[in-house]
Amino acid sequence: MPEYTATIRFYSLEAYQQHDPGLEQLLKKAFSQKGATVCTPWMSTRSLPPMHNIRISAMDSVPIEELGQVKVPEGVALPIRIGILLYPGFQALDAFGPLDALNVLSWTHPVTLSILAASLDPVSTKSPRHAHAAGQSIVPTHTFASAPPLDVLLVPGGLGSRGSGSEVAAAIQLIRDVYPSLKHLITVCTGSSLAARAGVLDGKRATTNKMAWSEITALGPRVDWVAKARWVRDGNVWTSSRVSAGIDVAFAWIEDVFGEEVAQRIAVGME
Amino acid sequence: MPEYTATIRFYSLEAYQQHDPGLEQLLKKAFSQKGATVCTPWMSTRSLPPMHNIRISAMDSVPIEELGQVKVPEGVALPIRIGILLYPGFQALDAFGPLDALNVLSWTHPVTLSILAASLDPVSTKSPRHAHAAGQSIVPTHTFASAPPLDVLLVPGGLGSRGSGSEVAAAIQLIRDVYPSLKHLITVCTGSSLAARAGVLDGKRATTNKMAWSEITALGPRVDWVAKARWVRDGNVWTSSRVSAGIDVAFAWIEDVFGEEVAQRIAVGME
Repeated sequence: MPEYTATIRFYSLEAYQQHDPGLEQLLKKAFSQKGATVCTPWMSTRSLPPMHNIRISAMDSVPIEELGQVKVPEGVALPIRIGILLYPGFQALDAFGPLDALNVLSWTHPVTLSILAASLDPVSTKSPRHAHAAGQSIVPTHTFASAPPLDVLLVPGGLGSRGSGSEVAAAIQLIRDVYPSLKHLITVCTGSSLAARAGVLDGKRATTNKMAWSEITALGPRVDWVAKARWVRDGNVWTSSRVSAGIDVAFAWIEDVFGEEVAQRIAVGME
Repeated sequence: MPEYTATIRFYSLEAYQQHDPGLEQLLKKAFSQKGATVCTPWMSTRSLPPMHNIRISAMDSVPIEELGQVKVPEGVALPIRIGILLYPGFQALDAFGPLDALNVLSWTHPVTLSILAASLDPVSTKSPRHAHAAGQSIVPTHTFASAPPLDVLLVPGGLGSRGSGSEVAAAIQLIRDVYPSLKHLITVCTGSSLAARAGVLDGKRATTNKMAWSEITALGPRVDWVAKARWVRDGNVWTSSRVSAGIDVAFAWIEDVFGEEVAQRIAVGME
């Protein structure tokens, strides 16, 4: 019977102080109703606002999506429904650096990962600017139109993000559509250009690939671009600079949401 | 018209000193016969043994595979046919760290990348040890049975490599079969366990994931295991330690074969 730790993160000290004293019982009951057994109902960390961990175990037959549908009060996060947006010509490591960390996270925490694309056809990393470029093709799990509800959206960069084709336009539209319901948006490298074009970075601090700086920043004239940063967080938006910085921002995000211990454990495993 | 640099690498100073003085003309002619134009016939580096670069350009219609079929004399490498071996439960970053570097390499150098698996069904990174694990599925380009001739084979690690199922057995057999014709074998993390089980590491220095050290090294009792190393090269075999060390070994290999300048340029782009 697989055992998981569901992490409850309070957005602020205020949210924690105001939190429903019945939250523990509420979650225990909700997980039980989904078919999971609560092993350790409540463990708190010393971070501020505190983070609560509930250890649960579930039969293999309990779909992990069910656990993700447990409702939590306002100001409390139980972020487990993660999606990654793919488009032709995304950069392999932009996506698979964070995905590797999230895959390992899923061994101990009830997270789901959806792979979203314009259609269900495999999406290639092949550079659209180089006719003979090598590439790998990844199979989506959902189309943009059939995307499940998401807590987190991850947007990789790549030469394909610079185009103006229908798949890029659809990707930008998806970001615009789902952003209001997201708890976190994470972009890697030139992935921030798609978020900028969707308008969701307006008024926010953000960063991007330094090698494409003027091209990308011009796409977001109302964004407060930060030139010198490996990654930047502004509220619920996390943007990173070049390709491998996507691994750093993924760890920073995991640490923020699931705690330092979980982030450390995964980082040591990936070393 | 895309322009490439084909790098000719001599295995040893002896191979260079004995090399056919007609090699330059031979390659120029061979590339032309494949439909490519030789722009700069010969540029040598100061490394020892020297590396020669031929700048060629080819119409988009010239298949890159054709350029790879140019015959080179004994002791001379023109390594462009790269394959990666996938099996269910390979670790995402083990594969996509090196693949990202190779994708970028393919923008300027005529390399081909084949994705080999037991069948043409997409291969998932999903951990076989965790029922609810997240994973991504990659589309193979060839089966083990239909693998094209290869200069280089890349073997990622992952929890799936520890199994004894038919796909793992087939992967081990593939390594055993193709190793004699390879110019280089590169393994990442526990990928070395598959090479060890294929017997191709016998008598060689190699390394692997430190977290699975006793389990993996027991699979290769005749291997000279090196405990403290991010990566180890012994002749044409390159093995690396944990997941992200696969990126390091890929750069070390690119630097050795294509020169420091090319490796640096790709590393800066991926930063």
